[in-house]
Amino acid sequence: MQPINLREYEELAQTRMDQAAWDYFQGGSDDEITLRENRTAYQRIRLRPRVLVDVSTIDMRTTVLGTPVSMPILVAPTGFHGLAHVEAECITAQAAGEAGTLMGVSTFAHRSLEEIAQAASGPLWFQLYMYRDIHITGELVRRAQAAGYRAIALTVDTPRLGNRERDRRHTLENATAARVANLHSLEVIESSYLPQPFVPTWKTVEWLQSLTSLPILLKGILTAEDALLAIEHGVQGIIVSNHGGRQLDTALPTIEALPEVVDAVAGRCEVYVDGGIRRGTDVLKALALGARAVMVGRPALWGLAVNGKDGARHVLEILRAELELAMVLCGCPTLAQVNRSLVKMA
Amino acid sequence: MQPINLREYEELAQTRMDQAAWDYFQGGSDDEITLRENRTAYQRIRLRPRVLVDVSTIDMRTTVLGTPVSMPILVAPTGFHGLAHVEAECITAQAAGEAGTLMGVSTFAHRSLEEIAQAASGPLWFQLYMYRDIHITGELVRRAQAAGYRAIALTVDTPRLGNRERDRRHTLENATAARVANLHSLEVIESSYLPQPFVPTWKTVEWLQSLTSLPILLKGILTAEDALLAIEHGVQGIIVSNHGGRQLDTALPTIEALPEVVDAVAGRCEVYVDGGIRRGTDVLKALALGARAVMVGRPALWGLAVNGKDGARHVLEILRAELELAMVLCGCPTLAQVNRSLVKMA
Amino acid sequence: MQPINLREYEELAQTRMDQAAWDYFQGGSDDEITLRENRTAYQRIRLRPRVLVDVSTIDMRTTVLGTPVSMPILVAPTGFHGLAHVEAECITAQAAGEAGTLMGVSTFAHRSLEEIAQAASGPLWFQLYMYRDIHITGELVRRAQAAGYRAIALTVDTPRLGNRERDRRHTLENATAARVANLHSLEVIESSYLPQPFVPTWKTVEWLQSLTSLPILLKGILTAEDALLAIEHGVQGIIVSNHGGRQLDTALPTIEALPEVVDAVAGRCEVYVDGGIRRGTDVLKALALGARAVMVGRPALWGLAVNGKDGARHVLEILRAELELAMVLCGCPTLAQVNRSLVKMA
Amino acid sequence: MQPINLREYEELAQTRMDQAAWDYFQGGSDDEITLRENRTAYQRIRLRPRVLVDVSTIDMRTTVLGTPVSMPILVAPTGFHGLAHVEAECITAQAAGEAGTLMGVSTFAHRSLEEIAQAASGPLWFQLYMYRDIHITGELVRRAQAAGYRAIALTVDTPRLGNRERDRRHTLENATAARVANLHSLEVIESSYLPQPFVPTWKTVEWLQSLTSLPILLKGILTAEDALLAIEHGVQGIIVSNHGGRQLDTALPTIEALPEVVDAVAGRCEVYVDGGIRRGTDVLKALALGARAVMVGRPALWGLAVNGKDGARHVLEILRAELELAMVLCGCPTLAQVNRSLVKMA
Repeated sequence: MQPINLREYEELAQTRMDQAAWDYFQGGSDDEITLRENRTAYQRIRLRPRVLVDVSTIDMRTTVLGTPVSMPILVAPTGFHGLAHVEAECITAQAAGEAGTLMGVSTFAHRSLEEIAQAASGPLWFQLYMYRDIHITGELVRRAQAAGYRAIALTVDTPRLGNRERDRRHTLENATAARVANLHSLEVIESSYLPQPFVPTWKTVEWLQSLTSLPILLKGILTAEDALLAIEHGVQGIIVSNHGGRQLDTALPTIEALPEVVDAVAGRCEVYVDGGIRRGTDVLKALALGARAVMVGRPALWGLAVNGKDGARHVLEILRAELELAMVLCGCPTLAQVNRSLVKMA
Repeated sequence: MQPINLREYEELAQTRMDQAAWDYFQGGSDDEITLRENRTAYQRIRLRPRVLVDVSTIDMRTTVLGTPVSMPILVAPTGFHGLAHVEAECITAQAAGEAGTLMGVSTFAHRSLEEIAQAASGPLWFQLYMYRDIHITGELVRRAQAAGYRAIALTVDTPRLGNRERDRRHTLENATAARVANLHSLEVIESSYLPQPFVPTWKTVEWLQSLTSLPILLKGILTAEDALLAIEHGVQGIIVSNHGGRQLDTALPTIEALPEVVDAVAGRCEVYVDGGIRRGTDVLKALALGARAVMVGRPALWGLAVNGKDGARHVLEILRAELELAMVLCGCPTLAQVNRSLVKMA
Repeated sequence: MQPINLREYEELAQTRMDQAAWDYFQGGSDDEITLRENRTAYQRIRLRPRVLVDVSTIDMRTTVLGTPVSMPILVAPTGFHGLAHVEAECITAQAAGEAGTLMGVSTFAHRSLEEIAQAASGPLWFQLYMYRDIHITGELVRRAQAAGYRAIALTVDTPRLGNRERDRRHTLENATAARVANLHSLEVIESSYLPQPFVPTWKTVEWLQSLTSLPILLKGILTAEDALLAIEHGVQGIIVSNHGGRQLDTALPTIEALPEVVDAVAGRCEVYVDGGIRRGTDVLKALALGARAVMVGRPALWGLAVNGKDGARHVLEILRAELELAMVLCGCPTLAQVNRSLVKMA
Repeated sequence: MQPINLREYEELAQTRMDQAAWDYFQGGSDDEITLRENRTAYQRIRLRPRVLVDVSTIDMRTTVLGTPVSMPILVAPTGFHGLAHVEAECITAQAAGEAGTLMGVSTFAHRSLEEIAQAASGPLWFQLYMYRDIHITGELVRRAQAAGYRAIALTVDTPRLGNRERDRRHTLENATAARVANLHSLEVIESSYLPQPFVPTWKTVEWLQSLTSLPILLKGILTAEDALLAIEHGVQGIIVSNHGGRQLDTALPTIEALPEVVDAVAGRCEVYVDGGIRRGTDVLKALALGARAVMVGRPALWGLAVNGKDGARHVLEILRAELELAMVLCGCPTLAQVNRSLVKMA
C-alpha cells in the first residue's frame, strides 16, 4: 500500500534500511531533545484560517535566490544518499527536478557533484564544509560553479561534529568516509570524513566571497545577532537550521528561531528554514513566520529508501498537495497572502 | 446498562458501527491535532462558581435567530446519519424536536430536506454547501425555504475537503456519495459528493442574500478579521467552527477562537460555537465566552447509533441535565448571569 | 508494615474497603478533573526556603476562631465515617483530639452529633447542610450549640449534589441515607439524604446568624466576589473549598483560588482551605498563601479504614511531622514567618 | 562496553550496587519532585548558539576561590563513597586531581579528611556539618585547615535531615553512621550520624569566620534574600543547592534559583550550583546564568561504582569533552564569551 503521508514513508523506510544507516539518518545529538522539539514546536503553533477568499486557483510558485521553483519546498542537503538507494543523489536530484524544485547537494554526497549535476533536471545548490586544507575547499567551490550549481550554502554550525551517540555505537562513520565521492581524487581524508579542525569564521566567509561569484547562503544560523552579522557581510541568504538536531542538543527549535532571524534581517536577504517539517501546514507556518521556502531533508531520504526516485518525488508531491490544501483552507491563493497573522502560539 | 454520559455513548456507539462509518464520524484531518485540541482546550478552562444565589429554578430557555428553544444546545449539521441508523436524519430531527431544540440539517443528509422537515417536530436550519452548478445551490435554498427551514448556515471552511486520512484508507466517500438524497434528482455528482471546485466567496454571500429572505449564518469562521467582514456583509449569525477538526489541522480550537470573534462582533450578530463539547460545563464555558448557544454533532450521532431516536434524545437530555447542574453549581439561575467572570484560563 | 506517608495509607485503605464505599470516598464529579487538579496544583508551586535561621524549636500552635489547636491542620467534615470503621466519627473525633486539633463533623455523620461530642476529646465544628424543612436546620444548629460545637460551617457549594458518576454505578447513596444519625428522629428523609431543593442564599446566612451565637464559616467559596459578600455579611470564616472535587468539575483548584480570596478578605475574617493536601509542604504552601489552617478530609478516612482511631491519629501525626520538617527546612520557626515570599509559581 | 555518557554510567552503576546503597545515593525526599525537576529544568532551557567564531582552541580553565582548575566542573561533596567502592573518597580525590579539578570532601566521608588529603593529587574543599558539640565542629575545621583544604563549605540546608523515604525502608543510616571516619575518635555519635539538634545560624557563620582563615562558602542557598545576607556576612562563595533534592521537596530547582542569586550577589562573591547536571550543555547553561563552576555529585559516584578511580575520572572527562563540544558549537572559545544571551527559556 502506497504511503499517504510522510510518517508512513518514515515507518516503511525503517523496514528497508539496515540499523546503522537508519540510525545515521534518524539520529540527533546527545539526548535528541532538539531533534524532537524541531517537530513538536510546529505542533504548538495554531493556524488562523481566513475564509470566503477565492481559492479556486492556488499559485505557490516562487523564486529562490532568483531561481524559479514550482513550490517553496526544497530538498535540504544531506549526506550519503547511497545508504538509502544505490543510485544515491543522482536520483534524488531527478526527483527534485521532476517536482520542479531545487536540491541542495552535500559535500558528503555519495556521488561527485559533477555526476549529480549531470543527472539532475532541476537547479542545484552546493552545500559546503570547510576543509582544513583550504585548497580542497577552493577546489570544491570552483568545481561547483563550473558544474552549474546556483549557490554555495556554507554550513556554519559544524565547527566540530555533534555528539551523535547512535552513530558511536555503530562503525558507520569510518565506513562511509571512504565513499565521499567529491574527495576521491584528493588524499586528505585519513580516519574521518569530518573536516576538523578547520573552523570557518566570518573571515572565511569573506574569503569565500572573494573566491566565487555565486550567491552565498549561511546554513545554521539561529540568532538575531548572527543574522545581523550575516547582513553586514553581505550574504545572499540564511538557512535557519540546527542541522536537524544533530549538532548542539537543546539548541532552539528552528521554527522558534525563525522569527528573530527574520526580524533582524528585515528583508535584506532571503531566509530559509529546515528541521521538523512533516506536513503542508508546517510549511505554511514557516512561510507565515517569514521563510522564503523550507528545506526538507530526512523525508526525501525516506522516499528514496522506499521507492527510489519515484519515492523521493512522491514525498515532495505529498508535501506540495498538503501545502496547496493548507493554502486553500487558509484562504491564501498565493504566497503574498501568507503572513504572521496566520499563526498564533498555543 | 444505559450510558450516563457522552463518553459512554461514544464507547457504545463504536461497538454498533462498522469501522469505515465509525472512522468517517470520528476522524479528523492530518494528525488530528485540532480534533483533540477542540476537546482539551475546554479542560484547560477553569470555572469560577458563585454561591448562595437562589438557584431553586433554572431557566435555560433562549432564542436562536428569533426561534425559541428550550436550551442553548443545538444539533450541529452532520452528514450521512444513515451510517448510524437506517431512519437517518428523520429521527434525529424528531429527537431534537422532542428535546425542544433546533437541528441543523446537512446538504449531505441521507434523506431529502423535505422528508426531514416532514418528520421533524422542531425548528430546522439548513446547512448549505456551494455547488459548482450555481443552479443546484439556488434550488437547494429555494427548497429549504419552501420546506420551512428557519435559516441557511453556509459552510465557509470547506472550499475543498480536508485531508481525512482515515477515510482515504476506506472507500466510504464514493459509496456514500450515491446517497446524497438532496441531490438525487440532479445529475451533477460524478465521482465525489464534494462540491469542488466551486469556492464560496464574500460575493457568494451577497448572491445568497439576494436569493432568500431567510437569515444567513456563516459556519466556519475562526478569526476576528473574518467576523468583522461578516458583520459588514450583514449576516445574522456566525458559527465558530473548525468543522470538528476535519478540515485544517492545527487550526485554532474553537473555544480559543470564540472570544476574539465575540469581541469583534460586539453584539451585532449572534455567535455560535461547535466542536469538542462533551459536558454541560463545556456548554457553560462557551456561553460564558459569549456564545448564544452551542452545537453538538458527533454526540448526537453516537446516540443515534446506540438507540435511534431515543438515544439521540437521551444524549441531548444528558447535556441539558449537566448544563442545568452546572448553572446550579455556578450560581446562574438564568443565562443572563453567565458572563466571562465565570471562567479563568489555567 | 506501617505506612510512612499518606499515599501509603491511601493504598492500604483501598484494600480494606469494599468498592462502593471506596468509590464514594475517592470519587469526584464528571471527569474528576478538579479532583486531580486539587492535587497537582500544589505540585506546581515551588518553595523558596530560607536558611541559617534558628529553627531549634518549631512552634506551629495557632487558634482557629479563637480555639487553640496544636497545629494548623484540622480534620475536614466528611460524611459516613462508618463506611471506613464501625465506630465511625466517634473515634475520628478522638484521633483529632489526641492530636490536639479540631474536627469538623458532617451533617451526614454516621453517629449523632451528641454522640460524637460525647466521645470527642477536642474541639468540634458542625458542618451544616440546609434542609428543605427549615425547622430541621434550626434544630440541628440548636443541638450543635447545645452539644458544645464551637462553630457552624455552612456548606454553600451544594445547592444540588454534584454528578458523581462512580456513585451512580453503585447503590450507595440510598443505602447510606438510612444511616444519617443526626436525622433519625426526624421523618423528612424519603428517597435521598440530599437536602434538595432547599437552596441556601445570602438571606439564609442572615437567618442562620439570627439563630445562633456561634461563629459561622462559609464552606465552598472560590472567588474574590463571594469572599467580599461574605465579609459584608459579617461571617467569621471562609473555607476555600470545591468539596474535594465532588461538586462542580473543572472548578478552580482550591490552592489556585486561595490567593484571590485572601486578598479580597484582607484580614477581615479567617480563611481556611481544603482539597488535595497530602504533604506537609502542601500545608506550608497553603499557609504561605494566607490560609489560617488547612482541613484534610480523605486522608483521615484512610487512616480510619486502615487502623481505626490510631490510624486516623497517625495520619495527622505524619502531617504534623512533615509540616514541622518543612518549617525547619524553610527557616520558619513559627507561623509568623510564613508568608507569600516562601512560594513561587512554576 | 564502556559507557559513553552519564546516563549509561547510571544504569551500569545500579547493577553494581546493592539496593540500599543505590537508594541512598539516588533517592530524594518525599515525592522526589525536586529531584526530578533539578534535571528537567535544564531541559527546558534552550541554547542560542553563535556561529563563525574561531573555536579552534577552547580554553575552559578557571579559578575557584583563587585555586586554578582545568575546567569549571568540580566534584560535589557527597557522603559515604565506600558504598560505591572500598577505597572510597581516596580514589575519588585522585580521579578529580587527575582531571585537574577540585573535590569537595564531605564531613560524612568514609575516610578521614587527612587520609583523603594524603591520597589526593588536586585541591580540596571541606564540606562541614555543624555538630551539637561545638568543639567537634571546631576540631573538624582545624583539622581541615591543617590538612591543606582550601575552603570550608558550610552546609546550610540541613538543620534536620530531609524525609528520604527510600532510606526509611532500609536500615542504611545507622549502619553507615558507624563509619563516619572523621568522627571515629570522638564519642559523640550515638544513634545517628546526623548532627541534630545543632542548627547553624548566621551567628554560627560569624563564629566559623572567627575560627579559621580559610574562605567560607555557604552551600544550600536558593533565594536572593539569603544571598544578600551572605554578602553582608562577607562569605567568599555561595553554592546554589537543594542538596540534590534530598532535603526540602518541591524546593526550587537549582538552575531556576541561580539567576536570582547571581543578580543579588552582583559579583560580590563567587556563585556555584549543583543538582541535575548530566550533560556538557547543562554545565554551559549554568555558566551562562552566572555560575563560576558547577559541582556534580551522583555522577562521580556512578563512575566510582562502575570502575573505581578510572570510572570517576572518566565521568569527569565525559563532562569535560561535552562542555568543550558545547563551547565549540556555541561559538564560545573561552568562558568570557559565556553569558545570558546564550540561553532562552522554553
